Amino acid sequence: MNANPEFLAANAHVDEAAIKPLPNSRKVYVQGSRADIQVPMREISQSDTSASYGAEPNPPIYVYDCSGPYSDPAVSIDIREGLAGVRTPWIEGRGDTEVLSGLSSEFGNERLHNAELQSMRFPGLVRQPRKAIAGKNVTQMHYARQGIVTPEMEYVAIRENMRRQEYLESLKNSGPTGQKMFELMGRQHRGHSYGAALPETMTAEFVREEIARGRAIIPANINHPEIEPMIIGRNFLVKINANIGNSALGSSIQEEVEKMTWAIRWGGDTVMDLSTGKNIHETREWIIRNSPVPIGTVPIYQALEKVNGKAEDLTWEMFRDTLIEQAEQGVDYFTIHAGIRLAHVPLTANRMTGIVSRGGSIMAKWCLAHHQESFLYTHFEDICEIMKAYDVSFSLGDGLRPGSIYDANDDAQLAELKTLGELTQVAWKHDCQVMIEGPGHVPMQMIKENMDLQLDWCDEAPFYTLGPLTTDIAPGYDHITSAIGAAQIGWYGTAMLCYVTPKEHLGLPDKNDVKDGIMAYKVAAHAADLAKGHPGAQIRDNALSKARFEFRWEDQFNLGLDPDKAREFHDETLPKDSAKVAHFCSMCGPHFCSMKITQDVRDYAQAQGLSEQAALTKGMEVKAIEFVKQGSEIYSKA
Amino acid sequence: MNANPEFLAANAHVDEAAIKPLPNSRKVYVQGSRADIQVPMREISQSDTSASYGAEPNPPIYVYDCSGPYSDPAVSIDIREGLAGVRTPWIEGRGDTEVLSGLSSEFGNERLHNAELQSMRFPGLVRQPRKAIAGKNVTQMHYARQGIVTPEMEYVAIRENMRRQEYLESLKNSGPTGQKMFELMGRQHRGHSYGAALPETMTAEFVREEIARGRAIIPANINHPEIEPMIIGRNFLVKINANIGNSALGSSIQEEVEKMTWAIRWGGDTVMDLSTGKNIHETREWIIRNSPVPIGTVPIYQALEKVNGKAEDLTWEMFRDTLIEQAEQGVDYFTIHAGIRLAHVPLTANRMTGIVSRGGSIMAKWCLAHHQESFLYTHFEDICEIMKAYDVSFSLGDGLRPGSIYDANDDAQLAELKTLGELTQVAWKHDCQVMIEGPGHVPMQMIKENMDLQLDWCDEAPFYTLGPLTTDIAPGYDHITSAIGAAQIGWYGTAMLCYVTPKEHLGLPDKNDVKDGIMAYKVAAHAADLAKGHPGAQIRDNALSKARFEFRWEDQFNLGLDPDKAREFHDETLPKDSAKVAHFCSMCGPHFCSMKITQDVRDYAQAQGLSEQAALTKGMEVKAIEFVKQGSEIYSKA
Repeated sequence: MNANPEFLAANAHVDEAAIKPLPNSRKVYVQGSRADIQVPMREISQSDTSASYGAEPNPPIYVYDCSGPYSDPAVSIDIREGLAGVRTPWIEGRGDTEVLSGLSSEFGNERLHNAELQSMRFPGLVRQPRKAIAGKNVTQMHYARQGIVTPEMEYVAIRENMRRQEYLESLKNSGPTGQKMFELMGRQHRGHSYGAALPETMTAEFVREEIARGRAIIPANINHPEIEPMIIGRNFLVKINANIGNSALGSSIQEEVEKMTWAIRWGGDTVMDLSTGKNIHETREWIIRNSPVPIGTVPIYQALEKVNGKAEDLTWEMFRDTLIEQAEQGVDYFTIHAGIRLAHVPLTANRMTGIVSRGGSIMAKWCLAHHQESFLYTHFEDICEIMKAYDVSFSLGDGLRPGSIYDANDDAQLAELKTLGELTQVAWKHDCQVMIEGPGHVPMQMIKENMDLQLDWCDEAPFYTLGPLTTDIAPGYDHITSAIGAAQIGWYGTAMLCYVTPKEHLGLPDKNDVKDGIMAYKVAAHAADLAKGHPGAQIRDNALSKARFEFRWEDQFNLGLDPDKAREFHDETLPKDSAKVAHFCSMCGPHFCSMKITQDVRDYAQAQGLSEQAALTKGMEVKAIEFVKQGSEIYSKA
Repeated sequence: MNANPEFLAANAHVDEAAIKPLPNSRKVYVQGSRADIQVPMREISQSDTSASYGAEPNPPIYVYDCSGPYSDPAVSIDIREGLAGVRTPWIEGRGDTEVLSGLSSEFGNERLHNAELQSMRFPGLVRQPRKAIAGKNVTQMHYARQGIVTPEMEYVAIRENMRRQEYLESLKNSGPTGQKMFELMGRQHRGHSYGAALPETMTAEFVREEIARGRAIIPANINHPEIEPMIIGRNFLVKINANIGNSALGSSIQEEVEKMTWAIRWGGDTVMDLSTGKNIHETREWIIRNSPVPIGTVPIYQALEKVNGKAEDLTWEMFRDTLIEQAEQGVDYFTIHAGIRLAHVPLTANRMTGIVSRGGSIMAKWCLAHHQESFLYTHFEDICEIMKAYDVSFSLGDGLRPGSIYDANDDAQLAELKTLGELTQVAWKHDCQVMIEGPGHVPMQMIKENMDLQLDWCDEAPFYTLGPLTTDIAPGYDHITSAIGAAQIGWYGTAMLCYVTPKEHLGLPDKNDVKDGIMAYKVAAHAADLAKGHPGAQIRDNALSKARFEFRWEDQFNLGLDPDKAREFHDETLPKDSAKVAHFCSMCGPHFCSMKITQDVRDYAQAQGLSEQAALTKGMEVKAIEFVKQGSEIYSKA
């Protein structure tokens, strides 16, 4: 059990495990149209192919990197100071915001002036909050609709491209085997995109169009200048979110910051702080000031703390104060459960597992207690006014998501989804950025219906799903029950997958669980990118497979999602360093190795005149392999 | 690293971890039409619902049980003696086999009379091998085609039904809430079966028809009377296989037996012994004599050992001797890579990862060295003669399966698959049971093509796939990359999923890895059963969800695939026993709990007249939720 130890800000320190660069990896930055657009990527270098496989160079590959400055040895990190505000000049440059003289929220001021909190409060430079000048709208969607390409848009375009063209071009010039390498690394299977329109090369203008259309969002609060912008939309790489947050029962501020830095190290594209215990205002400040990725929250959780857990005591006024409090801290997206209307609540009465979303059940309880329409729904345009003054994106919550296979795709869930579609139109009227949350527990054959209805009813606003879990019978393994569903819904068009850890339904995830959840979801997201046919997605698979085939063990580890784990597993059976350059593995042993045989095949094919054989089979259709048919006819006992 | 310690048969002992019944579980047997048909199931008992949720009884549920007599406290296990031969009277009763006076294989006799092996040899009662009387065919397919319903067929029919009808009927009589329980537990979403024909209730006659048609197999060597019969076919529950086996580099006989008992404890439906080190004949004997599940092997592995790893020295004669040696030990299915023809080999020359199947590369090397057609192909009918004399099932190997995303569904793979389809017809001519092995590494959008071609070309012979792995970039997590693909291909129609452990590509799996692999695959198989709409598949999900909703923690753990893990995870955050009866969990804490709120909703719904609401929404179509539309129109700022 995680105790809740006395936390002293003065003692806070960065997790050493979070700042070590990954093996053979180097942080590189691609510069955009202005000097201060420096887009980070991770370059993974590789060794040359050994002589027995052709002695060719293997140029480094480039992968998407969420880890921020933590993995850059040139940057010195002190979490008591927070990260630099890379976006500050962009935000200032637009001239549509003003720095306020103090916090606008009552609660924020209360916490700021509470002397008892001094020892745990984030000690870094206190930023004065920034807000849109009266009458201005500072959302990325607003700019996009005005035809403005922001630095954020250009940044994500460069980021999504991952230097693919440059990498492939460089292969051609990598020596005598350059053309072969170009073809090997660049080849990719045709995807099935289910209607996604994936451009061959991402441009800032395409990003702008997608945002203007509402089909993508860049969560980027003007009070979170520390973020490295990222984009969420069906025509971009599939993203994943990692949830962290303490509860009344455990974990400290230091632990939560560590979970965040740990999560982004392994590939969390955004992080949601779902804290429900005490001091969540202070915890959040620490997380945001140190986070290079967008931070999401569910403000109703904090609002509930303020009324001591009595949902019926919630009011619009104090919820509004909470939104402003968090918006001025820099939260990038808010889960708002405005789709649960009073009339939906009774639809859940005959469910197997009722309402499993915390936010959903809070609002359901409020509606019932007052027998009134939800204040989130009735005040939705008021909320839009706040969102657009700070550019907080909506994550319209699925408070009625199914908590069991039994409840999947039921009337309650779909009624809420329909409402979210209506609210999307309202938010878009205000140029607010919107994504839509989705289930939950759904058996495989019912997943696609979720995606299809969401695309239809929510007009292609990005879908952001929790799993879905494809069976209920495996507590302890729900990262897997849900990765199965996540890969599928990602393929069908979901833009961001909210991870599920092995502790789901059982307890609070610790750092190991966070990593396990992220790994399962990186796998799901990448499998979805491959299936959609995202340009360049296969490069990393190709590079790793080549390393595997050529027994470049270290490269195989380093090109993988988790070099540490791969190395550890390998070393359990073959611990000696020599084994890592050995041309065999522990499955077959040195005696016989299937990989080695392929070289014989190649030699043979060449000797037999592969070109003839290739000519014979060229154009061979899957449905009619002529020489096999012929084989069938000549089949006879020898 | 697992050493290869001196193994002494006299010291062999059953793994204590394998014989402990799972918590709140009891072995029950359902009797068939004769006294000696006793079909095992696991009964999981549950506690009553607490007063706050309605104080109703929750009758036990029944789940499929692969663990054999190990989990029956009434049976005393001594692995030095082996298991009882439950099928012996059935086999004898058919009167078409004879007990031989000795082993037919040269190698078998050599090992039997090698005094040096005495200390490690299985010490139990040495069974004289059994063989079909000359001219007889003893395959289950042969009986099925004669119209004979064997005890094995009846057994699997009972087993597949899992007492579903009896369970549901019993619910109705379980007190005042019986009808409600019947509806809650019995409800299941309509599946999408992709052409599978899943009968509402399994009958022995249906089993017979499926086997006669070649659409299902019961792997059941007459020399393996210890097995509890199981069936593999697209119209039955999706099964999983666990691979075990030592290599030249590690693990002992005791360890391999423990991996087998461990694998079946967690749900392995069959086990393949892929040993490649020394003493594989003796290891296999220990495994078979102690295994209640079918055992599969790849005989070419052992044949290769006999020629000291030199593939070109393999001959039909010594391969034939190996088949007979293993058939007389009781191996239930053989992977035979007869689909790799000489002409296919050059098709792999331009692959990223060449030939990754060990068996495939052995045969490719042989073909190249001799520039001859594979002897497995030319002697295929000779092999059939052996198979039908012992009822060993074919598992036609996919020696050219892709070892990388790059190589997925390529000409080499498909040429082999086509050949496997032709060989299926040949085997069926001999009434031999056949299943077809499948890939490998395949991105999601290309999985269905594999299934469709297999169904077409192999005329619905059961498909048995390794994964497929949906990306190459996650060494250390390939149980997950592949569970994603396995769930999908299982849904599309694959009958058995060969597990992949986290150690895939990296090292030999230990017991932890075996369990992790099995869990990922039990999840995939069950997700597939739900998606196909297998009758009754949802009962366990429903029961577990009800327990979860009612905070019956112990029941939630026990109904899951892995009660130990679920309990351990829960206790990490809330270790106190009291927490396991607490009506909250560590995610929300005692302060506020979403589950609790649903009770309020139910009370409210009742007070508001749920019946009206229900009437309002009854027949509500997904595409047109009227009251939501209405909500849209009345939307206005409050």
